Amino acid sequence: MKFRVSCHIEYEVTSPATLLFNIRPRITSSQKVLDESLVFTPEHATELIITEPDHNRFDRIVVRDVQQLQVDYQATVEVQHQVLNPDMLRKTAPHKLDQRELPYLLASRYCQSDRLGRFAWKKFGNISGVYEQVLKITEWIHENVEYLPGTTTSATSAYDTPTECAGVCRDFAHLGIALCRALTIPARYFTGYAWNLNPPDFHACFEAYIGGHWVLFDPTRLASPNGLVNIGAGRDAADVAVCTIFGMARTLNQSVDCQVLDPSFKGLTIEELKDTAISLDTPPNAEA
Amino acid sequence: MKFRVSCHIEYEVTSPATLLFNIRPRITSSQKVLDESLVFTPEHATELIITEPDHNRFDRIVVRDVQQLQVDYQATVEVQHQVLNPDMLRKTAPHKLDQRELPYLLASRYCQSDRLGRFAWKKFGNISGVYEQVLKITEWIHENVEYLPGTTTSATSAYDTPTECAGVCRDFAHLGIALCRALTIPARYFTGYAWNLNPPDFHACFEAYIGGHWVLFDPTRLASPNGLVNIGAGRDAADVAVCTIFGMARTLNQSVDCQVLDPSFKGLTIEELKDTAISLDTPPNAEA
Amino acid sequence: MKFRVSCHIEYEVTSPATLLFNIRPRITSSQKVLDESLVFTPEHATELIITEPDHNRFDRIVVRDVQQLQVDYQATVEVQHQVLNPDMLRKTAPHKLDQRELPYLLASRYCQSDRLGRFAWKKFGNISGVYEQVLKITEWIHENVEYLPGTTTSATSAYDTPTECAGVCRDFAHLGIALCRALTIPARYFTGYAWNLNPPDFHACFEAYIGGHWVLFDPTRLASPNGLVNIGAGRDAADVAVCTIFGMARTLNQSVDCQVLDPSFKGLTIEELKDTAISLDTPPNAEA
Amino acid sequence: MKFRVSCHIEYEVTSPATLLFNIRPRITSSQKVLDESLVFTPEHATELIITEPDHNRFDRIVVRDVQQLQVDYQATVEVQHQVLNPDMLRKTAPHKLDQRELPYLLASRYCQSDRLGRFAWKKFGNISGVYEQVLKITEWIHENVEYLPGTTTSATSAYDTPTECAGVCRDFAHLGIALCRALTIPARYFTGYAWNLNPPDFHACFEAYIGGHWVLFDPTRLASPNGLVNIGAGRDAADVAVCTIFGMARTLNQSVDCQVLDPSFKGLTIEELKDTAISLDTPPNAEA
Repeated sequence: MKFRVSCHIEYEVTSPATLLFNIRPRITSSQKVLDESLVFTPEHATELIITEPDHNRFDRIVVRDVQQLQVDYQATVEVQHQVLNPDMLRKTAPHKLDQRELPYLLASRYCQSDRLGRFAWKKFGNISGVYEQVLKITEWIHENVEYLPGTTTSATSAYDTPTECAGVCRDFAHLGIALCRALTIPARYFTGYAWNLNPPDFHACFEAYIGGHWVLFDPTRLASPNGLVNIGAGRDAADVAVCTIFGMARTLNQSVDCQVLDPSFKGLTIEELKDTAISLDTPPNAEA
Repeated sequence: MKFRVSCHIEYEVTSPATLLFNIRPRITSSQKVLDESLVFTPEHATELIITEPDHNRFDRIVVRDVQQLQVDYQATVEVQHQVLNPDMLRKTAPHKLDQRELPYLLASRYCQSDRLGRFAWKKFGNISGVYEQVLKITEWIHENVEYLPGTTTSATSAYDTPTECAGVCRDFAHLGIALCRALTIPARYFTGYAWNLNPPDFHACFEAYIGGHWVLFDPTRLASPNGLVNIGAGRDAADVAVCTIFGMARTLNQSVDCQVLDPSFKGLTIEELKDTAISLDTPPNAEA
Repeated sequence: MKFRVSCHIEYEVTSPATLLFNIRPRITSSQKVLDESLVFTPEHATELIITEPDHNRFDRIVVRDVQQLQVDYQATVEVQHQVLNPDMLRKTAPHKLDQRELPYLLASRYCQSDRLGRFAWKKFGNISGVYEQVLKITEWIHENVEYLPGTTTSATSAYDTPTECAGVCRDFAHLGIALCRALTIPARYFTGYAWNLNPPDFHACFEAYIGGHWVLFDPTRLASPNGLVNIGAGRDAADVAVCTIFGMARTLNQSVDCQVLDPSFKGLTIEELKDTAISLDTPPNAEA
Repeated sequence: MKFRVSCHIEYEVTSPATLLFNIRPRITSSQKVLDESLVFTPEHATELIITEPDHNRFDRIVVRDVQQLQVDYQATVEVQHQVLNPDMLRKTAPHKLDQRELPYLLASRYCQSDRLGRFAWKKFGNISGVYEQVLKITEWIHENVEYLPGTTTSATSAYDTPTECAGVCRDFAHLGIALCRALTIPARYFTGYAWNLNPPDFHACFEAYIGGHWVLFDPTRLASPNGLVNIGAGRDAADVAVCTIFGMARTLNQSVDCQVLDPSFKGLTIEELKDTAISLDTPPNAEA
């Protein structure tokens, strides 16, 4: 499936600063970037950093003077969402995880899995089947947390959400990740472009490592997993911010777009996801 | 019903200190103290402070030198637990609450009702009948929070418990209070001697102000409401600590006892509490 | 000194609600209200509640329908700021405090004095003279916390401020209170009208109980203690909110004014406050 | 310098579990392991995992039955502490950092650098010289935080410590790291064996990335940087726990030892560290 993605962001940079952008899609065996263009206005040289082992692509620029800065990115991306049968997905025991996956079992800034163990085991410990287990986590979040922009801040974390019961896609994802990790299921933060997201914006959800695949879950239900283009994979939002700012700058406005180029495309429904798992990343030689 | 209550506590006082004890039962229209004795070893003069409007009784002593201090209290208390029909208990609207009850709607140190509003309304907002509502809160806590001594500290508060899912009687009570207040039901912290508590100790639960009565609820289910003798009523544990220490002292050991003097006494069961409300405090002329 | 105070507030009430206003100045031996008028538009009957023992005056109204509501209050207030010599103010030991003052030693929702003990004693424990001690607390806050509207929320508390280093008058006051209480100095939250406050608004600072007086301290330095008219006295902001809302309503806009009627009035400077303590409340028969 | 290090740990494993040990020293250009032995009693096959890019060495074992488990490790390690002249150490600007170092600028589970920015810049922003800056951070922590075992838990983080003012080596390190990152100095958590540590135990401190070297700082002052043998390098304690347990197990007891084999060895003093920086890790081709 081909997607046309783009974003336009304007910053007010109020001190000399280094900006690290994470807006280009990852290039993996499931995602090919057919063409792309990134333009800074005023012009700035950008250094492309591709991280190992996660293949996130960061653009680093240095802004030496106070100024307004525009970022325009667009790309055509071919994405092969793998469609998997949940019944075939087995949990990978911690002793079989590779060092690429092990860090995604550990607590991180916004995903305090160390403090959510009792919660996770009490509510989801007895569910048989690891896909079913993560699906139940996703459903629980959807039912118990309200999607309410403005109720949370960048300091909100998975520890808060069972009590606060509100948040945005970022908060939904952090809670999903923390609960998976507490159950010894590796989980990571997923940022991306999302088809049909309303209002259009960057989106965040999460991936759980199941049966050798990073399987997609979106507790907000605002996007279809097969309508997602992956930008960043990380421990949580701290790893893959749209823009990590070293210095002083603030976003003035932002617009994001994601079109699918095949008019016959259909997003998977919640009903279909019960029998269909979607992955955008299958590490080579993974233990299934 | 007559109860024989007692406690023996030993402190190591390591600096000159003022100690404020809250171990004598309140004297109210429901509780009469028939006899009591309070002995400090070594001997210390005590000043009795009875607070308004809650009738808590504090003993204040000044310890001038470093020393070990023993406190021995015993009393015979006649308690008239009012047995109420839950069907007759109506919610008192906030505009009908007296200034004695209004403070018990506000957030306090360990009961951040301001942050638990969404949680409370989402889970308990649609239950008809205020007694039923508080009963459901109590049941939810019992089912979702594990009674696990050692998992929480004196810094733990109601904000933490939906995420931590563990605690002791104090934590159970704080969560119950915060949820009631979030639903505009006045609620206060109740400390007391508890018949048949195992292991014997001071106990904490909470009272909700319903239909003109302070009705007892114990989310731990470790004590029967009709087996309780009330010591303190307060916003939360900060108001009615067994001993508030101004200076440096620590508890070395403590034993608590509560016997009922009528051998035919029976504690109310969980089943019975569905149809029977128990109150130990009915303010005069309250709006029912 | 006579002050002319007023406020105009507009609310959008989106559900039937009870509103509890705390905008009338307290009436104490130091404050006389010469005239006042409170008008709700549309008209609503108000019930005046005067709390014991703190003499806060609340207006309670019931709003039965969804509507916009305007509140207009104005008053002429005669205030006698007591000018005290700091050298004469002794600390009242905990064993000499009355039950009116004792609650102001305890931890409350936004003033977790139980967790700030080490901080308080380490930084301010060795200062001789209780007025000097609280003055140093006030100076420390002024120097280490930035006054930055928008950085904190209604969930921010004294526990956060040493780390966050920013806030508004409310946060400055909460930290001052928590530090005083940790040092066994009773302290309470003070809301009021403030002469010359820029921009004009309700103001918050705190009072410490010293030498039998509630002495005023303003860590923001935005108001002069002798230019303050006291509205509420409470444990913290939860007790004396401008408007406590039981139901759903939000503030649309608000304007506040405070004029002094004597053109020769001069606000005390920071320099002068080193030798001059100001109190607006001296309980009768207090132990100095 | 040669060190003889060892540890003996006993666990009670109460469910089938996977244990991930981080007790072997890293092997880097500065550390050579001359001999080592790791014995589990009862015997267990261990899988050695060496992480990229940090060269941490983990031993993973699977415990299938409930049992007591002993771990005995000992090794002879040759360590070349690089002695650097602080005057030659320049700050590496964020736009010159490699992707190996960039993650150490981001907030992590216990090091919420995102919330400590104002604190860091206010207290340490104006110090010229990056070594001097980190040294001042280290001194500030030493002077303002008390080393008090038992005051903190595994949930305590850098956000708490400026308010709590107490902790253990782990807490000291987390605060140092968070403050460095807030100032855009990469910083990571350092665990190790420490010569002359009293009482003997595993130790934690931190490294800041300065002038192309990971320079050691110990805010506890309990160990000399030139007496340290590095075990783990990570974002914080979550990455390099002595034992990460997937399943249920608890430590029964533990003993740790670290001897230097050269009798003439001298630990560097606080005074000497003003003019002498010590590093145990200099990435190849780093931008100095």
